[in-house]
Amino acid sequence: MQSNFPEHPPAVVISGIEPAVDGGRYPVKRVVGEPLEVWATVFKDGHDLISVVLLWRREEKGEWSEVPMRDLGNDRWGGEFTPDREGLYEYTVAAWPDREGTWLDEFRKKTAAGEGDLAVEREEGAIWLREASLRARQAGDVVAARDMMQMAMLLPTLDPAEALELMEGEGARALARRWGDRRLLTVPEQAHPLLVESRLAGFSAWYEFFPRNARGDGKTPATLRECTRVLHHAKALGFDVVYLPPVHPIGLSFRKGKNNATTCEPGDIGSPWAIGGEAGGHRDIDPALGTMEDFRGFVEEARALGLETAMDFALQCSPDHPWVREHPEWFHHRPDGSIKYAENPPKKYQDIYPLHFHNANWRGLWQEILDTLLFWCGQGVRVFRVDNPHTKPVAMWEWVLREVRRKFPEAVFLSEAFTRPAMMRHLAKIGFSQSYSYFTWRTGKEELQQYVRELEEWPVRQYMRANFWPNTPDILAYELWNAPPAKFGIRATLAATLMPNWGIYSGYEFVENKPLPPKEEYLDSEKYQLRERDLSAPGITVHISALNAVRRAQPALQERGRVVFGETGHEQVMAYARVGPEGDRLLVVVTLDAENAVECMVTPPLDALGVAPGESFAVEDLLTGETWTWQGGGNYVKLDPTERVAHVFRIVQ
Amino acid sequence: MQSNFPEHPPAVVISGIEPAVDGGRYPVKRVVGEPLEVWATVFKDGHDLISVVLLWRREEKGEWSEVPMRDLGNDRWGGEFTPDREGLYEYTVAAWPDREGTWLDEFRKKTAAGEGDLAVEREEGAIWLREASLRARQAGDVVAARDMMQMAMLLPTLDPAEALELMEGEGARALARRWGDRRLLTVPEQAHPLLVESRLAGFSAWYEFFPRNARGDGKTPATLRECTRVLHHAKALGFDVVYLPPVHPIGLSFRKGKNNATTCEPGDIGSPWAIGGEAGGHRDIDPALGTMEDFRGFVEEARALGLETAMDFALQCSPDHPWVREHPEWFHHRPDGSIKYAENPPKKYQDIYPLHFHNANWRGLWQEILDTLLFWCGQGVRVFRVDNPHTKPVAMWEWVLREVRRKFPEAVFLSEAFTRPAMMRHLAKIGFSQSYSYFTWRTGKEELQQYVRELEEWPVRQYMRANFWPNTPDILAYELWNAPPAKFGIRATLAATLMPNWGIYSGYEFVENKPLPPKEEYLDSEKYQLRERDLSAPGITVHISALNAVRRAQPALQERGRVVFGETGHEQVMAYARVGPEGDRLLVVVTLDAENAVECMVTPPLDALGVAPGESFAVEDLLTGETWTWQGGGNYVKLDPTERVAHVFRIVQ
Repeated sequence: MQSNFPEHPPAVVISGIEPAVDGGRYPVKRVVGEPLEVWATVFKDGHDLISVVLLWRREEKGEWSEVPMRDLGNDRWGGEFTPDREGLYEYTVAAWPDREGTWLDEFRKKTAAGEGDLAVEREEGAIWLREASLRARQAGDVVAARDMMQMAMLLPTLDPAEALELMEGEGARALARRWGDRRLLTVPEQAHPLLVESRLAGFSAWYEFFPRNARGDGKTPATLRECTRVLHHAKALGFDVVYLPPVHPIGLSFRKGKNNATTCEPGDIGSPWAIGGEAGGHRDIDPALGTMEDFRGFVEEARALGLETAMDFALQCSPDHPWVREHPEWFHHRPDGSIKYAENPPKKYQDIYPLHFHNANWRGLWQEILDTLLFWCGQGVRVFRVDNPHTKPVAMWEWVLREVRRKFPEAVFLSEAFTRPAMMRHLAKIGFSQSYSYFTWRTGKEELQQYVRELEEWPVRQYMRANFWPNTPDILAYELWNAPPAKFGIRATLAATLMPNWGIYSGYEFVENKPLPPKEEYLDSEKYQLRERDLSAPGITVHISALNAVRRAQPALQERGRVVFGETGHEQVMAYARVGPEGDRLLVVVTLDAENAVECMVTPPLDALGVAPGESFAVEDLLTGETWTWQGGGNYVKLDPTERVAHVFRIVQ
Repeated sequence: MQSNFPEHPPAVVISGIEPAVDGGRYPVKRVVGEPLEVWATVFKDGHDLISVVLLWRREEKGEWSEVPMRDLGNDRWGGEFTPDREGLYEYTVAAWPDREGTWLDEFRKKTAAGEGDLAVEREEGAIWLREASLRARQAGDVVAARDMMQMAMLLPTLDPAEALELMEGEGARALARRWGDRRLLTVPEQAHPLLVESRLAGFSAWYEFFPRNARGDGKTPATLRECTRVLHHAKALGFDVVYLPPVHPIGLSFRKGKNNATTCEPGDIGSPWAIGGEAGGHRDIDPALGTMEDFRGFVEEARALGLETAMDFALQCSPDHPWVREHPEWFHHRPDGSIKYAENPPKKYQDIYPLHFHNANWRGLWQEILDTLLFWCGQGVRVFRVDNPHTKPVAMWEWVLREVRRKFPEAVFLSEAFTRPAMMRHLAKIGFSQSYSYFTWRTGKEELQQYVRELEEWPVRQYMRANFWPNTPDILAYELWNAPPAKFGIRATLAATLMPNWGIYSGYEFVENKPLPPKEEYLDSEKYQLRERDLSAPGITVHISALNAVRRAQPALQERGRVVFGETGHEQVMAYARVGPEGDRLLVVVTLDAENAVECMVTPPLDALGVAPGESFAVEDLLTGETWTWQGGGNYVKLDPTERVAHVFRIVQ
């Protein structure tokens, strides 16, 4: 029976450590400089006081840092720390019976009750002082050791009031805290992981464009060297990230034609997602775009403008990909000897071979995937947009993202998983920095509010950062079909002010709105051909520049801001407060009606704004500079889409 | 880098297994015969179908049982099993890509789309059939092996429609399910614990009495042999458990006098919680009560009446306890050589020595605690009421309860932890079967409803079974001070119909209501003296008998019943539905006003009762046999405490 004894029975109960994702199985996420507040339920049997600390460290083998936690009442304790660099951290809560504090507490009560000379209690104090002194001496702190030994000698000679004065002094208490008896220290078996990412992971504005279309004349493919004007355009619009569809050689076998035709015409340039050809595969640059040196030059040119380059990482192969010849074992083979192309019966995708991630040589394939990502990190890339990660094993992503981050902890990964919620969330849990979201199809007021609340929910907010895109090269949402500029302005306003991360695919700013019904695809999509585009056209560029400028200036629109919805008297008008980490407050009022002027009363969420009912306050529209006086009740608003689609108010007073 | 590969990368994602207490750290609880429904989020990358099963087994080394789980939509799966004996179980969810099902699904779609002769697909079918046949052969199922080999030979010879007919047949599908390819089986690292207890743990009515007071003449102490009339009394009242305060020798040193006086008079009988004297300690019977044989006789006599005996387990020692001499190391010693008595400054409890659970010989002490419990199990005891468990280490209880259950899995433990919520809940998590609760002080309608909702909440309901006591020897709640019989009837009704577990301390049924102000204690408490009590007095015995009879007859009032509150037009009237596992429905309407008649309209919770708004239904008052016609809207109720305090309606129609 003896063998069943617990090895180190914990003296203190520590439970309910939060935040935690799936009980600590997956990391909570923060960015550099963003504090992590930690709470736990900590208590002990009986009447002893306890000491509770938050422990944290970077990587598994670093030294633990210790922060005292505060007693929040009802056995709940809280503390926080702020990580200052990227990496995988862990944190936990430790506690022990506070022998010295308990002694002082009881001594104080007995002194107040006048219980005699308390000689035995003073001697008990001297005992713990001598023990603490010994610990200090062993740790080399001879001053503390000497001070405590002197106190141990003094204590038995004092009367209770004098003894209490001595031991209640800040000096004695600091020594007790520092050198106290921790023999009954309790630490949970498992620490909780924390992934600290670059600030860009938490706050970013993306601009996607096809470099081959940089000329915009619809005729001549451009090279990476010819993208300067697009980079300046993205910069002028206020974006942080330029995202390029795959820049690798494009397959010829079963190449798709214009508008996704199953056969292509001579001269058709092919979809960049059909990766791999004579000129190479995932580690090569399409010769039509230039050389590896050109690519590095592009990354550097962008960075000089304050733009990070996001590379597309699409794990699929055209039949012409070198892996098909070099590693046939990485693909599914059929009984007739052919390689299995992608299909979702009865649909067939003969231009694409999916990889067989569980093949007998899976380690070889996974290693190649990792090495490919590291290769591009070596070329200066720090941001990856991962294509359809939900069609590859989650376990592979969990492994490969962790391995990349060991060398490049600042790497950012955007998950393009337009799939069911469980998979979408899970990819965020296992390490993707950001996630494409359902925003693209959330267009009504109620469904938008509900979706944002869901994303702000605990614990979703702890691990998933939605990135709001009104469009992508694959998706011209119904909402945007042949829609007027105001509709594009509305969707941009929502994306840019509801979430810290948003993005557009180029052409959006020029209100490109022609679909290929019945699919939500672009007519004459850039995926398969060149398009005319005039970068000097007005479109809604002024509005987008203004949105991005406001985002940069206002912490409330960045990583740590909260969204709180207010009431409006109109089903097409939304109002929401954004509250920043330092109490900075914005109020966004936006119409969803791109056709008609709407007017209604707006009741801002007063609690969130810190405004009393009936109180007046000045607001400044950050998009226009206009100022008004509002009050903590109903306020009249009129939004005429021919003039404006939104107010982004700063609460001035 | 190679060394960082996961050993067995899971092919399927399995997460969010529920129910789970603290992510599976602590067991979910059920009783014998009560089903455990399990849910999990399970999904895989790509389009493959998956197979998902619930695995469960008793004890760590038993064989796993397997139950298929159902697809509930949105990647959520569910399944259940019903444990048929007490013990520690574990359960988990396993899944794998359903290669055979995926093949069939795609074959069906391609056949429907008329995609040629599907020769390659048929050959792929023959391949998995041959592999499955081999698995069957290796497992010794030669019939299945032969059948599948024949199908493998047949399949390539059939046209698609014939092939589909063959493979869609129940025979082929059953073989595929049984012998399918599970090489990519995914099982979570850690299974979840489940504690299956006796039915008594989930449904019980307790009657506490001091055996020494069995005569009830206020003068002569009774022995265990003289308790027969009290046992018959408890039986007549309909209780299941008779709970005795400690039956061990009582200390003489610092013995408390009547009404908790710090000094005792000659002849004072002492508190049974001051355990240990000349005649022994925790394994001995107070000679005044009889012998060990008498005790066994009591347990058997009670059991013959359908009453389990609950023993008090109070881990503290009078200064006269044999452990004080034999194991001085189990106690706290002070610098002056004395043993530290219990205190909570400035309060002193000199008649009690607390144990030092973290002493150097803690294993010896813990083993003795375990052996003591096992000793009493050996005397026939299966129910323990544990005194103040929150003043002893939680780790000790977790260990000792588990060890007792290894030998006596039917043992039931009631935790008397009138302390803060975190500790109260935690003791339930680590293994206590039932918990004393705050019911004793929840007297208003709102606070009662809120408290019951909290106890019914997920996941509290999964691990904590509150036991509702209107009184205890330590607590005569303010609500009951000098209160009339109707108040006692009200509180009994609430306790007995809101929770599957309730209890009273004797005298309650006779409306003993005299306090010792300002404390919520009884005047002339039985803890320190004998009391007069006439077991033939009427009191509210008829009401209590009726309540217990209804509880036994109605599954809705037992372990798996749910509480759903309805609306009443009166702040002193509560109405709640109790819904049983098989859809049986009760409606309780109870007044909280023991002084005045109340009348109001009652709107039952229609959804819970399965009644349409406006629909009429017959109700039968199970306390009186009267019947009425109610309707799914407002119903007039009058409760006059001089006549009745409650209706307990059964929905007849």
